[in-house]
Amino acid sequence: MPLVNPQPLTFPLSEAARHIQRSVMRDLIALGARPEVISFAGGLPAADCLPLDEIQTCLDAVLAAEGRRALQYGPPYPPLREWIAGYMRRRGVACAVENVFITNGAQQALEILGRLLLDPGEPAVVEALTFTGIGQVMHAHGARLRAAALDLETGVDPAGFERALLEDGRPARVAAVIPDFNNPTGASLTPAKRPALAAAAARAGVPLIEDDPYSLLRYAGETLPPIKAYDDAGLVLYIGSFSKVIAPALRLGWIVAPADLLPRLTVLRESLDLESSQLLQRVATEFAQRGFLESHVQTLNAANLARRDAMQAALSRELGATASWTVPDGGLFLWVTLPAHLDTAALFPAALENGVAYIPGVHFSADGRHANALRLNYSNNTPERIAEGIRRLASVIKERA
Amino acid sequence: MPLVNPQPLTFPLSEAARHIQRSVMRDLIALGARPEVISFAGGLPAADCLPLDEIQTCLDAVLAAEGRRALQYGPPYPPLREWIAGYMRRRGVACAVENVFITNGAQQALEILGRLLLDPGEPAVVEALTFTGIGQVMHAHGARLRAAALDLETGVDPAGFERALLEDGRPARVAAVIPDFNNPTGASLTPAKRPALAAAAARAGVPLIEDDPYSLLRYAGETLPPIKAYDDAGLVLYIGSFSKVIAPALRLGWIVAPADLLPRLTVLRESLDLESSQLLQRVATEFAQRGFLESHVQTLNAANLARRDAMQAALSRELGATASWTVPDGGLFLWVTLPAHLDTAALFPAALENGVAYIPGVHFSADGRHANALRLNYSNNTPERIAEGIRRLASVIKERA
Repeated sequence: MPLVNPQPLTFPLSEAARHIQRSVMRDLIALGARPEVISFAGGLPAADCLPLDEIQTCLDAVLAAEGRRALQYGPPYPPLREWIAGYMRRRGVACAVENVFITNGAQQALEILGRLLLDPGEPAVVEALTFTGIGQVMHAHGARLRAAALDLETGVDPAGFERALLEDGRPARVAAVIPDFNNPTGASLTPAKRPALAAAAARAGVPLIEDDPYSLLRYAGETLPPIKAYDDAGLVLYIGSFSKVIAPALRLGWIVAPADLLPRLTVLRESLDLESSQLLQRVATEFAQRGFLESHVQTLNAANLARRDAMQAALSRELGATASWTVPDGGLFLWVTLPAHLDTAALFPAALENGVAYIPGVHFSADGRHANALRLNYSNNTPERIAEGIRRLASVIKERA
Repeated sequence: MPLVNPQPLTFPLSEAARHIQRSVMRDLIALGARPEVISFAGGLPAADCLPLDEIQTCLDAVLAAEGRRALQYGPPYPPLREWIAGYMRRRGVACAVENVFITNGAQQALEILGRLLLDPGEPAVVEALTFTGIGQVMHAHGARLRAAALDLETGVDPAGFERALLEDGRPARVAAVIPDFNNPTGASLTPAKRPALAAAAARAGVPLIEDDPYSLLRYAGETLPPIKAYDDAGLVLYIGSFSKVIAPALRLGWIVAPADLLPRLTVLRESLDLESSQLLQRVATEFAQRGFLESHVQTLNAANLARRDAMQAALSRELGATASWTVPDGGLFLWVTLPAHLDTAALFPAALENGVAYIPGVHFSADGRHANALRLNYSNNTPERIAEGIRRLASVIKERA
């Protein structure tokens, strides 16, 4: 009996599946996972900070109090929706439990909204540099992407954003923006840009996905309201997530949307995977209700700030004369721009050979630019490893600069 | 500040989302959840049998042994894939770890395979009576459904199945069959039909999804190999699930597919929701490796058999002269056929009024027949409540028969 089925594929695949390439990001992250490599490639929260004891406490409490109910099928857990609604109100958003839809993390929220809003060939607006998961969903639903110009320090430009929404006299079907600590740039929208983007979406009549996995991860500067707080027109579809602030293994996020949409979101999600784990929904609720979220975010942010500072210091020391980079006030990433003649995708094999990994800028670019840039994750290495990793990276760059 | 966003929708929805109705099944199940109602509507495993102590043991063991790794992002958990490959080999399937793809339950497996294989307007074959989740996925990907005739006791007919695969000289893009304890009929494919269906798929060159959430739930008759065991052509895509044999809250299932397909499945799944919970993957592995699965399945099957017997006895007592029904050897459901002039959807309000709920047959029908039939779940009520529920149901039926 052969162990691996040896047959070649003999049946047709869908249009979408035929065009699938391997996931380059996943491959790069996997290469970075080799023990001899210091990887700045992933988007992982700090592994050594994950709240193990608190999660054990919450699991025990949930199983003791809820028993078998926590293991069965069930509706979205009402206390979790209530906690999220309260959290959104504290952030300045008009939000009741009827506006909160639970998902398997932010990625599933993106997929459900893509399915809700997009048809093949229709235009969608993304930031000129954006999270690859946003692009994947837009492509999976056949969208034609329009890139909205952004400033590396202050995020997308409202006037350019509005032009992209209305390009060729044909309104986009959806737009997506990461307001705080953008993946990949680390930039946050200035206070003035937030109401301006909500107003631009309202004038164009285009729904705006606000993808916000990072805003709690702020260690400097003032906390800002989300774009959703300025959403007088009911067009902003806000996405939150527990992956980066509690643990990815909870697989929990949420959408805040007009209550009218919730029955449709429920049906769309049912055919995707029915529901989120009743057990993990209760664990997240317990974690939030006990105040573990606040204390854990403080721990994370102290660690992240030290790691950002270590990375900034190492970059100044090693590449101060050669490169420029963003200085985020939170989140997981910063963005490095090298001299224009350098191609970070071409440099990658030499960097890996020298024991360091990153993601080349071109993978985040909606318009094919930024080949001379790269994304660095600083949250998932100690300051010592960060210093050593930047030294390895700089030696590869300086040979060619 | 208004609590519920009052704005009507002002933006266009996708073609698919515009046609969404409320989920009738979900509404019926919700109605059945009222405390005064005895519900045979759901598809839930026995709530009182869920393995609470074993799951607590596994959670503690996983967190003690694996710590923060169980809370982070990560690749599909290798020991889980290995356990599943061994289980499939014990069932007679040529299967290595390279053939095993982890999903969030069987529903996500269906969605990923729908996305892999279907394009709008293309034909897909389903059993004339089939699980609603299969129909939802086929519709979500724009398929035109062809119904393959089935026998209520022995499942789909291979000759009729092959005709449906090749109807109008245009091969279907995919077919889907539930081999054991079909939802909704409770029927299992006879031993002879299994290789016959594999051979029909091979002659037509059509991939066959074998959706198998129930085969371990056998309390009578002999265990049979899955269709996949006869898959010489590499066309059978097998789906398994832990939801009905461990706990729905694990949200874990799997696909067994040709190894060539795995990179494509990985990319398709990445844009849906990245990955399954690292914690829950480890808990399921621990549960299986400790032998809890075998012992728990025995407990479940003893309870299910007593409940099926209670339902059969009550049906004989109350409706022996009026109705006929299937006698499954396992699973969660049986199928009742009433006199042809009765419409079980029209009867539903009176049944609910009388304190009993079920799912009308028409909701499972791919060809609009079976309006006089209904699906009963027997696994999630005690024998006493089953007897009382059937008494309530019979009194509504007998008034009109």
